[in-house]
Amino acid sequence: MSQANAYAAHADDKPLEPLTIDRRSPRPDDVAIEILYCGVCHSDLHFAKNDWGLTRYPVVPGHEIVGRVTSVGDDVTRFKAGDVVGVGCMVDSCRTCSACQDDVEQYCLNGFTMTYGSDDRQDGTMTQGGYAESIVVSEHFVLTMPEGIDLPSAAPILCAGITTYSPLRHYGVKKGHKVGVIGMGGLGHMGVKLAKALGAEVTVFTRSDAKVEEAKRHGADHVVVSTDEAQMKAVAETYDFMLDTVPVQHDINPYLATLKYDGTHIMVGLMDPIEPAVQGANLIFKRRVLAGSLIGGIAETQELLDFCAEHNITCDVEMIDMQNINEAFERMKKGDVHYRFVIDMKSLKNAA
Amino acid sequence: MSQANAYAAHADDKPLEPLTIDRRSPRPDDVAIEILYCGVCHSDLHFAKNDWGLTRYPVVPGHEIVGRVTSVGDDVTRFKAGDVVGVGCMVDSCRTCSACQDDVEQYCLNGFTMTYGSDDRQDGTMTQGGYAESIVVSEHFVLTMPEGIDLPSAAPILCAGITTYSPLRHYGVKKGHKVGVIGMGGLGHMGVKLAKALGAEVTVFTRSDAKVEEAKRHGADHVVVSTDEAQMKAVAETYDFMLDTVPVQHDINPYLATLKYDGTHIMVGLMDPIEPAVQGANLIFKRRVLAGSLIGGIAETQELLDFCAEHNITCDVEMIDMQNINEAFERMKKGDVHYRFVIDMKSLKNAA
Repeated sequence: MSQANAYAAHADDKPLEPLTIDRRSPRPDDVAIEILYCGVCHSDLHFAKNDWGLTRYPVVPGHEIVGRVTSVGDDVTRFKAGDVVGVGCMVDSCRTCSACQDDVEQYCLNGFTMTYGSDDRQDGTMTQGGYAESIVVSEHFVLTMPEGIDLPSAAPILCAGITTYSPLRHYGVKKGHKVGVIGMGGLGHMGVKLAKALGAEVTVFTRSDAKVEEAKRHGADHVVVSTDEAQMKAVAETYDFMLDTVPVQHDINPYLATLKYDGTHIMVGLMDPIEPAVQGANLIFKRRVLAGSLIGGIAETQELLDFCAEHNITCDVEMIDMQNINEAFERMKKGDVHYRFVIDMKSLKNAA
Repeated sequence: MSQANAYAAHADDKPLEPLTIDRRSPRPDDVAIEILYCGVCHSDLHFAKNDWGLTRYPVVPGHEIVGRVTSVGDDVTRFKAGDVVGVGCMVDSCRTCSACQDDVEQYCLNGFTMTYGSDDRQDGTMTQGGYAESIVVSEHFVLTMPEGIDLPSAAPILCAGITTYSPLRHYGVKKGHKVGVIGMGGLGHMGVKLAKALGAEVTVFTRSDAKVEEAKRHGADHVVVSTDEAQMKAVAETYDFMLDTVPVQHDINPYLATLKYDGTHIMVGLMDPIEPAVQGANLIFKRRVLAGSLIGGIAETQELLDFCAEHNITCDVEMIDMQNINEAFERMKKGDVHYRFVIDMKSLKNAA
């Protein structure tokens, strides 16, 4: 057992504060990691505030972790001390069900173990995430960071990146497809880059004129201002896929109308009831599909990291110190982030 | 030009009444048909009552038509006088768009021509349906009734049958799949028979114990009473596909929970807003799909007729006289039909 300095949520109405946590001694299949960077995901905020009713306190958020291996258990074959590695949203799963066997551990029939806030499958202790100096994770759930990739800006690939990449790959997005991306936050701007790199023609849907130039800077071929009825009408029945990254309730019917027949609207952000209600006719009359998708499997996340290194894709990030996390949360609530905060964990070490 | 006795809706608050309508002289690609039987679809009732706001009066409903060819135009190659044929929900489409080229005329980019209530693409007159002695239809939209098939009970295959068969085929339902069927009306009972014939293990979901035996008689392997929470819980994450034939608003969230990850909920009946709202999490956490599907293409409808003949599948029907259509509509409203009314068109001729 070792101890690690961390920042934790202690209650739903309190800011994050320092906490010293235990990290287990590496089991035979474990990799011990010194954390260098950790991205700040909107889920961290939801979880810290117990928005989903799942939170037990104190909890250390963080599931976009990049670090360096400090030691490994006896059975570990793929990693050694000094390797630069990543850990995303999952740290374990049952490993035996059909989903795990099919490399979609995120759909594990017995429920995957979240990087924070889940019960460890072996000792029952609650997992604690990446807003910390170190973490210990079973080899299968550790990713290799490709050589040459910029580490801080690669951290969000482990959640924001894979959340958008996985459905694009699952549905076979490629050259010749027209893809719309709704929302230009952490997920959306990665969705644009990834869909472009996969060969698609990409249109960003934004509610404000202000984001048009920004969307093009990320590689969007076209931008549609969704509040402009004429612009929306002009793209009726145009897209093969719509990647909907918006995490708050919004009317998806106008977007369904922009899909071709057999088009697919993929939701990755909205866990709440889909309101205003979806019109059945919008699905039936054009055989359209409304789909959901959750992060991605471990093998697919490795594929994505390698893909990003090859295509020189990273996340646009703003570096912060661990001590500024509460201010960062406040700015996230207001949408004031371009496009992901990443914590430089040196700041935690220096303070400790 | 010829005249035909028919029954038409004359206003949304009036019963159907006799009307003499014009049928065009066959164009070079036309087939003139003496109607023998016509199924009564719930859409006929919706259209007669202008529930969708599309209706122009007077209109002759009916799009499950079986008849005998009386004459053909000069360019017709596939039919001759005396052939027994069918006509379903479509009598024309643009024939040149990608959907038409791909044999999914129901998704014609320029809008298909409905068997009743649409404008004819050549002369602009409003199409009139199958509650009539005769009809004239372009060869491409005329189906061959396979030898030996029971004609009255085959009529509903042209709408109720193809509406359930098309999505089962589109999504590749086959042996090894578990399929749930929601609703045991005209569509649902066909869905059970067709999913069974395609090799799937079929479970019927019904709100009442009363329909359990009936569902099994149609070939269902299992029946789940959907109002029984314990029964619903016992089938969580069980099905690959859910075929939802219910035409009125209902909560689909409990059914989504019975789908495996990657499972697909197919709606064929509900044109209205999907309320209560679909929970985004029910789609996202298991990569589930909510899909719509509309009737089927002409080639696929012919495939289905041949499939039904081969597997000895027909619709359970109750024969009525044309004069009893208003009573039939009333009984349909109350769900008092097992499972499709079919009009014996002799009754119209005798009355004329």
